[in-house]
This record gives sequence, C-alpha cells and structure tokens, in this order.
Amino acid sequence: MAVPEKGVKLLDFWMSPFGQRCRIALAEKEVEYEHKLEDLSKKSDLLLKSNPVHKKIPVLIHNGKSICESLIIVEYIDEVFPGKTNILPSDPYARSHARFWADFVDKKVYDSGSKLLKSKGKELEEANKELIGIFKTLETELGEKKYFGDDAFGLVDIAFAPFTSWFYTFEAFGGFSVEKECPKLAAWGKRIKERESVAKSLHEPTKVYDLFCEIRKKFVDA
Amino acid sequence: MAVPEKGVKLLDFWMSPFGQRCRIALAEKEVEYEHKLEDLSKKSDLLLKSNPVHKKIPVLIHNGKSICESLIIVEYIDEVFPGKTNILPSDPYARSHARFWADFVDKKVYDSGSKLLKSKGKELEEANKELIGIFKTLETELGEKKYFGDDAFGLVDIAFAPFTSWFYTFEAFGGFSVEKECPKLAAWGKRIKERESVAKSLHEPTKVYDLFCEIRKKFVDA
Repeated sequence: MAVPEKGVKLLDFWMSPFGQRCRIALAEKEVEYEHKLEDLSKKSDLLLKSNPVHKKIPVLIHNGKSICESLIIVEYIDEVFPGKTNILPSDPYARSHARFWADFVDKKVYDSGSKLLKSKGKELEEANKELIGIFKTLETELGEKKYFGDDAFGLVDIAFAPFTSWFYTFEAFGGFSVEKECPKLAAWGKRIKERESVAKSLHEPTKVYDLFCEIRKKFVDA
Repeated sequence: MAVPEKGVKLLDFWMSPFGQRCRIALAEKEVEYEHKLEDLSKKSDLLLKSNPVHKKIPVLIHNGKSICESLIIVEYIDEVFPGKTNILPSDPYARSHARFWADFVDKKVYDSGSKLLKSKGKELEEANKELIGIFKTLETELGEKKYFGDDAFGLVDIAFAPFTSWFYTFEAFGGFSVEKECPKLAAWGKRIKERESVAKSLHEPTKVYDLFCEIRKKFVDA
C-alpha cells in the first residue's frame, strides 16, 4: 500500500545513479512523491535554490526543506518514513559497516567507471583493471550473502544497485565479463532486480549503453 | 568524569586531521582509550588487518571490531557512547543538514588545502582562490551561530576543527588572512579551542607549518 506523503518532491535526472538511489529508497518506503526531472543544461531555479552549494541533483524536498547528496537523502528517508524496509540496521556496528561500504561504492565505482567510459588506449586498460579490482573487492564483501546487508536489502544494495544497469556498458567498452570476473556480484545484480523498488527505478542496460555511445562519439572518439 | 571503556583503541597518525576528529569525539564522550600511533611508512599488521580495504588510519577498534573512515567513526562514537554531548542532533532534518556540511568539509577542505600546500606559481594561485571560496561558503553557513550546530558543538565542528591548526600554514603559503577573508570562521576557530576536547586533540599551528615546510622542501621546491 502506498503511503501518501504530502510535500515530497525529488529533483532528479533521468539516468542519474544518484537519483536512482533515492527513487529506490522512496519505493522501498512506499512514499508517493512528485518526480521532477531536470534538464541539466538548463537547471531550474528550484534546483539552484534548493542546492545552492553543489547545484546538483538529486535533491529531496520534504515539507519545504531540501536535503542533498544521495546517501544523506537515503538515510533521511530511512529515518523519517516508516515502512516495511529498514534501510539501515539498528545495531550501531552494523550501521557503521553499511555506511563504510556505501561510502566505498560512492568514492570508487562512479569515478572509476566514468574513467573507463571516457578513455581509450592505455588509460582505458588501466581504468579497466581498476574497476575490476573494485568489483572484486565488492564481490568479496558480498560473499555468499543474499544482499550486502545479509538477508536484509539495505543501504549498500541501494548505493550500488543503479550501477548494475551500467554493467553491460562497462563490459562493452572494457571488454570484460562481470559474470566471469565476479559471478556472485552478477547474480546479486539479477536478484535485486526482482524487487519492484529496483526494477522500476533503473533503466534498461542498452539505454545506458546508447547514452554513453553518444557521449564517447562527442568527447572521446571526436 | 572519564568513563572507562574496555577495549577501545584508536589507530592514528600524530598529525592526521581525520584521526583528530575521532580524538575530539572520544574526548567529548569522555571515553578512555588506547591511542596507538602508527608509522605510516611501516604500517602495523593490526592496521592492515583492521582496514584491509583502504589500509588507512584512523581505525577505531571497539570490542574487537574495527570501524573505519573518520566521519563514520564519529557517528559510531555518538551512537554507542553516552555522554553530555550529542554529536548529531535528534531531528532527522537537522541530522541531514549536519551530515551535508560535514561531507562538504570532507570533500573540499583537505583536497583543496593539500593542493595549495603542494603547489607553486599559477597552480598555487588557483588553489588559493579555491580554498578561500570554500572557506567563504563555510563562513556563510556558520553565520552568527556559536557553532555550526548552533548552540550545540557537533558533527560539522568536529569535521572542520582539525583544519583550524592548518590556517596558519595556509596563510603562510597562500598569502591570505583567514581573519580578514572570513572573520566569523576565524573567531569560531578560536572559540572551539576553548573546549578541552579540541584543545587537547590539535597541534600548535607552527608544528603543522614545520611539517609542511619539510614536505615542500622534498617535493615542491626540490
């Protein structure tokens, strides 16, 4: 059952993995919200006013107050909205463990993945190696668990989930197979897509691939 | 009154601003702990085992479990140890606000400050301008408040406090005056040093300056 929440708005960009984290968290909590997609080449006054420091999406607006930075938004959603899912565990050590791995994803995957998608030659090879290393570290942390939060789908799953839609693109440009290098991670990627919150928040991998082909055409192969 | 806590250990480096954040938080909570200073050129087996992913200090070890990354450690300390100080406010919006600004300090001050301290010529000029901009943003956020958390000393104060010992060094190499550019920030820097937790965790600004003079001699002016 959806829980209508007055005054919840998400400023977002259609393919942002950071915005998708917020969408998944809101879906897990069954919060209804206004989804305002931004044109990043012409940012709205509302976005500039809501996040004057970074001027970036995503921004969650709740009761007229804005919350910025995706992982901070996800923690806020967890603290404010009741629901079947507890995104963070209640035990302080388990919370710090989840925060550590969400932070690892945050610092490593996007930067390394973007490097891979924007480079060629030797630089591409290095980025490739780096990203596989990051994935292997995450594979080790996941181990035999169902989710990163063990039986509970949680913060780390939400932080990393959007990048599963990028696997196909990483493979196409990097020339490696996530399935072969990190079979547990690949299986986890399929498993989380069985959750409605994830399935409805992510895009088809080919759509991400098409976008990066366009970007490469303009900035890398030009 | 000190609250003895069995099994609390902090792996640290003498002048690390990240380690200092943990020291301040532990002091605010009046937690007694074993302070193990690392030689970063020869990291201990305990450090490598406790933080196998980043292999970095600070690491807090509590009841045999390790917690890594300074802001995550500070939140853990707040959640686990009682004390007079609540490092994070109880209101979810105020919590997200504090997390946003602590994250801002985390992402901006160290990187930009390090750039300034390691560069010369045009690059130094640019780093200078960038750091002053970051300080002005923090000055605006501080405004007329006593602490970043208003009347309560909290997460953002702890995140930024260690860098007040770097002001003198930034000024010496960057050629600007924090006092002149950001008078409120300079006054806040003096105010927080009146707290025992901060005073005993930070070093004399000249000690930081001497270290960076050595570093510059080796890597910048060589």
